[in-house]
Amino acid sequence: MKKPKVFVLDVDGVLTDGGFYYNENGKVLKKFGPDDNDALKLLSPYLEICFVSGDKRGFKITEKRINDMHFPIHYVSTFKRVEWIEEHYNLDEVIYMGDGIFDCLVMDKVGYSISTSDSDINAQKASNYVTKRKGGNRAVSEACLHILDKFFDKTNINDIINSSLIEEKCL
Amino acid sequence: MKKPKVFVLDVDGVLTDGGFYYNENGKVLKKFGPDDNDALKLLSPYLEICFVSGDKRGFKITEKRINDMHFPIHYVSTFKRVEWIEEHYNLDEVIYMGDGIFDCLVMDKVGYSISTSDSDINAQKASNYVTKRKGGNRAVSEACLHILDKFFDKTNINDIINSSLIEEKCL
Amino acid sequence: MKKPKVFVLDVDGVLTDGGFYYNENGKVLKKFGPDDNDALKLLSPYLEICFVSGDKRGFKITEKRINDMHFPIHYVSTFKRVEWIEEHYNLDEVIYMGDGIFDCLVMDKVGYSISTSDSDINAQKASNYVTKRKGGNRAVSEACLHILDKFFDKTNINDIINSSLIEEKCL
Amino acid sequence: MKKPKVFVLDVDGVLTDGGFYYNENGKVLKKFGPDDNDALKLLSPYLEICFVSGDKRGFKITEKRINDMHFPIHYVSTFKRVEWIEEHYNLDEVIYMGDGIFDCLVMDKVGYSISTSDSDINAQKASNYVTKRKGGNRAVSEACLHILDKFFDKTNINDIINSSLIEEKCL
Repeated sequence: MKKPKVFVLDVDGVLTDGGFYYNENGKVLKKFGPDDNDALKLLSPYLEICFVSGDKRGFKITEKRINDMHFPIHYVSTFKRVEWIEEHYNLDEVIYMGDGIFDCLVMDKVGYSISTSDSDINAQKASNYVTKRKGGNRAVSEACLHILDKFFDKTNINDIINSSLIEEKCL
Repeated sequence: MKKPKVFVLDVDGVLTDGGFYYNENGKVLKKFGPDDNDALKLLSPYLEICFVSGDKRGFKITEKRINDMHFPIHYVSTFKRVEWIEEHYNLDEVIYMGDGIFDCLVMDKVGYSISTSDSDINAQKASNYVTKRKGGNRAVSEACLHILDKFFDKTNINDIINSSLIEEKCL
Repeated sequence: MKKPKVFVLDVDGVLTDGGFYYNENGKVLKKFGPDDNDALKLLSPYLEICFVSGDKRGFKITEKRINDMHFPIHYVSTFKRVEWIEEHYNLDEVIYMGDGIFDCLVMDKVGYSISTSDSDINAQKASNYVTKRKGGNRAVSEACLHILDKFFDKTNINDIINSSLIEEKCL
Repeated sequence: MKKPKVFVLDVDGVLTDGGFYYNENGKVLKKFGPDDNDALKLLSPYLEICFVSGDKRGFKITEKRINDMHFPIHYVSTFKRVEWIEEHYNLDEVIYMGDGIFDCLVMDKVGYSISTSDSDINAQKASNYVTKRKGGNRAVSEACLHILDKFFDKTNINDIINSSLIEEKCL
């Protein structure tokens, strides 16, 4: 692929294990995992990072978390993602990370794609890299280190941390 | 079995991992998983889909989730399910999915039955197909793709998605 | 051991995975699992069943769940359990199920003891039977079927269910 | 290393599985696990124990749990931990337990370090001991028994419990 310019990530099943906690009034909780935010900060000097989600009922929860992480988040259904990506980027400069049964539609079109170890079987088949870790359990962190290694020749964690000047942003 | 006409699914342990979150006032949360709703939408052009649950104290939570998914949900204890199914369908045209210690009573009677990989051991023995995925972790999604393959000769995910015209329903 | 007369179960880590959900005000949620209540109902015609818990801060949550299951629950710290059991039963007629780092103190004294597959390593060493299932994930259900098999020669699930007359109690 | 004088533990991913439960208003829940508090009480006669956390948004939740456990908790970002430890202790008398992508920075400097089985890969590489158990699933309990064995020649759980006089403190 051409040098990647942007990392587009789905949220549910990627930053989370895909679970929706319901009470009698509807969807009220999502569980986000460790290290993903920190690893994205390590990656952020190298390429643009943004999130997309098609979960309408849980969007406010998603938005709150991604805002806390200081990344942009857009409401885009999986079916409209290829079109949305094309409006903003060149498809072949995009790394996409997803997990769901429809994500193969996006993965087939972008420059490079990543799925989680517990993602849908067709997402795994359609992606270039399947993480060892599960969604919400450091899968995004692993993906960030994979991207730093594969596309930017950064392999040593101490070098990556030292060159990132990220302390304040990670707090 | 005869061509299946309906897919009847239990909820707790099938769409969820079977967990009940309690506070001092009782059962307040259940956790639903990814892809199951989307996969059921892919399956819905081919046969009727409905849910049954015998969880009285958590029924409002269950009902809210299934309503959000736009499927019918009925309160039917496991012991009354065979009778209930017989009133509405021919047993041999029913695919049943369950996970619990009493679900073998239903599985022995219907045309085809599915259990989850983390279901009760007797449910697993009584069922025709045991998913690789756990309840609340894409077991229903896997079951839907299995049914599309086994009973409707649909194996290619892109063909299934393209022929389903489901975009709006899945949002 | 002598014919068991009572099954005494710890709650946290046995009926749950041992997790305590905290918000800023303290312990607010516990997660209970599937089938355990139903399997205890199947076992209840054969011996007495009661629960003990030493979790003071979460006791109201525990009490609510066990009350919903229609079993007795007593506040007894692990250190006082042997003494408490002796006051109410003969130690050698007791089956005890636990999971924690102090439960070996109880397991060494009772007639028969059961731990979960994810319990403390010393609890596993001290117990007569370690379930394959984890706490909060049908470990108690497995323990009940094990007890029915080992001490009451009941092995067939359909026979057990049919002879239990439990329908209404399980709803 | 010199005889350890203090056990400094990170909280998220160590006492928990690293998960943050979000609702629309932000981070509202964390899940703590079994046995860790009890095992720390068994260890507490032998060396000082304190917690550090860099999770600002979830600090009140963390603080509530650690206060319930009767241990000190300090707000210290991972990047400032080596400096903070040096102000209070000799680095070579410190055992540190962590899980995150930046914890290798601390692990490289202290006398002895421990990570969890589900921790960041670089944390695992940088630590002297990786627990078999996961964070929030008795990893700290295992670490405590490991420390008692390795540094204080205490291997028998009954002896450890009997010599600890901890009953009341553990309630």
